[in-house]
Amino acid sequence: MPGPGEFQIIRDYFTAAPQGPGVLLGIGDDCALLQAPQNTILATSVDTLVADVHFPAQADPAKIAARALRVNLSDLAAMNATPLWFTLALTLPHSDALWLQQFSQGLLETAAEFAISLVGGDTTKGPLSITIQVTGSCAHTAKPLRRDGAKVGDHVFVSNSLGAAAAALPFVLGQKTTDNKQLQQAQNAYYLPQPQFALAEAIAPFASSAIDISDGLIADLTHICTASDVSAELTVEKIPVAVLARQLNTNHALQLAASGGDDYQLCFTIAEQHLPLLIKKQLPVTCIGQLVAGKGNVHCSLNGKPWRAQQTGFQHF
Amino acid sequence: MPGPGEFQIIRDYFTAAPQGPGVLLGIGDDCALLQAPQNTILATSVDTLVADVHFPAQADPAKIAARALRVNLSDLAAMNATPLWFTLALTLPHSDALWLQQFSQGLLETAAEFAISLVGGDTTKGPLSITIQVTGSCAHTAKPLRRDGAKVGDHVFVSNSLGAAAAALPFVLGQKTTDNKQLQQAQNAYYLPQPQFALAEAIAPFASSAIDISDGLIADLTHICTASDVSAELTVEKIPVAVLARQLNTNHALQLAASGGDDYQLCFTIAEQHLPLLIKKQLPVTCIGQLVAGKGNVHCSLNGKPWRAQQTGFQHF
Repeated sequence: MPGPGEFQIIRDYFTAAPQGPGVLLGIGDDCALLQAPQNTILATSVDTLVADVHFPAQADPAKIAARALRVNLSDLAAMNATPLWFTLALTLPHSDALWLQQFSQGLLETAAEFAISLVGGDTTKGPLSITIQVTGSCAHTAKPLRRDGAKVGDHVFVSNSLGAAAAALPFVLGQKTTDNKQLQQAQNAYYLPQPQFALAEAIAPFASSAIDISDGLIADLTHICTASDVSAELTVEKIPVAVLARQLNTNHALQLAASGGDDYQLCFTIAEQHLPLLIKKQLPVTCIGQLVAGKGNVHCSLNGKPWRAQQTGFQHF
Repeated sequence: MPGPGEFQIIRDYFTAAPQGPGVLLGIGDDCALLQAPQNTILATSVDTLVADVHFPAQADPAKIAARALRVNLSDLAAMNATPLWFTLALTLPHSDALWLQQFSQGLLETAAEFAISLVGGDTTKGPLSITIQVTGSCAHTAKPLRRDGAKVGDHVFVSNSLGAAAAALPFVLGQKTTDNKQLQQAQNAYYLPQPQFALAEAIAPFASSAIDISDGLIADLTHICTASDVSAELTVEKIPVAVLARQLNTNHALQLAASGGDDYQLCFTIAEQHLPLLIKKQLPVTCIGQLVAGKGNVHCSLNGKPWRAQQTGFQHF
């Protein structure tokens, strides 16, 4: 039985998406027509997830969709932007009604959870890949969190804990096995990263820079350092290592926390004088280092001795 | 020699893009930060071009880039929106400095021609595909051109002429050969479609609906009819057939004009009472039919007799 055609896919699986305020015309015309909230600037980001590069092609379609939207939402969170709308460009090797039903359900449930409207897209035939572009708004009164504002002397923080997603990856890929409970935790760590909206809003008034950790802590902190024209001294033993990372990979948990990607926690910097404000808020954040004069390098030490990560972060090519 | 890495690709080839007004922060952070013009609504559209589906993988990278941006710009034109900014999600099988240099040059030249700013993107490894999302603005005082406003009795028009891109395709793909001059014309017809911004602005005050012809005249007129809950009577002999279509494919030029895609001309409808206004403007448009009561069907006749297209338009799947 042939699967649904291109226009039927859009009609059957994606036009049921609830539409938030500001969506004047959603899916189905040459363009979506959108009204940005008054007195805001827009923040926009696009990410492509390629099958067997960013996720196993055979994975649960609902989980693929949830992850694809969440990693994009994380970029909005990292700028302290509020989600408004998104588009989906979906390339599929063949039309498969069951896959599409599960994918769209996972996508629209995630969209509802984060109050973001699907307003347009494109469906094409080809090797499986998913490109999502999210747009959010920053109130003129709220400060966007950029990478380029960090200063020498600022302290470096990360949110929650790191390493879980990287430790989970071999289990998600089926290269390692474990019991059902831990497999479930591994899948959640990999497929359901939590965009840090609340934390970003809390730190925005006084953070000097921020980034979401997608490529790995050292790589992403390097991005901050490069954009801000500083270097960093990272105290590796202070990195909060996820309990799950220790459970799944006892020997390399610290390595994974330092350089494994996919956790989507925030790394941010804050000037010395604002530390009391941060401490008063009792946020789930940990100080892991400090910025120094330099040209975009991250110097790591473990218990006072120079330390090198086995890898410094994911790069395509 | 290995090609440039992911971050070097972005730095070397894409950050030189000129930034128009409203781009507060372009490429290089978690999100771009954008200020929409006052008193406008936004129009946004996304299209994916997959290698060997939408273009030959071995084609001139500058031409691939030009086409990818132009087909997206055509969606803005079809809504009577003014280009503001776009993003590029580029998936490449391997990093190739020469390919990237040519691709980015074609892209940025096209962007400059249409005064649209590249503000963000993503570079991933995988089968070659290009996803571009364009955003434009519609002044509150200007009417966006939607698909769903056509009424029974309205006249159906197309801009310029049709069939050239479809007739050109076998030559572009190397399936047919011709002399250099005609090959050049064929490549221009296929790779350099002209987004119809000026025409859209001219017809917007009185057109009841519009669409850009990407899938083929009959298919795209069907989209208008479906969205507007009408049917159409199309007088096939009135369709303006491109000279190049007749030259490249004498036997099937009319078929290609009726149902071949990729011309990116406008199809639009206009109420009887506004015809004098349209005629007065002396625009390059041709009346090819009229809307009737019905449920989204396009009925074709040739010299008074029912006529069927050999195919009704391109659909993935």
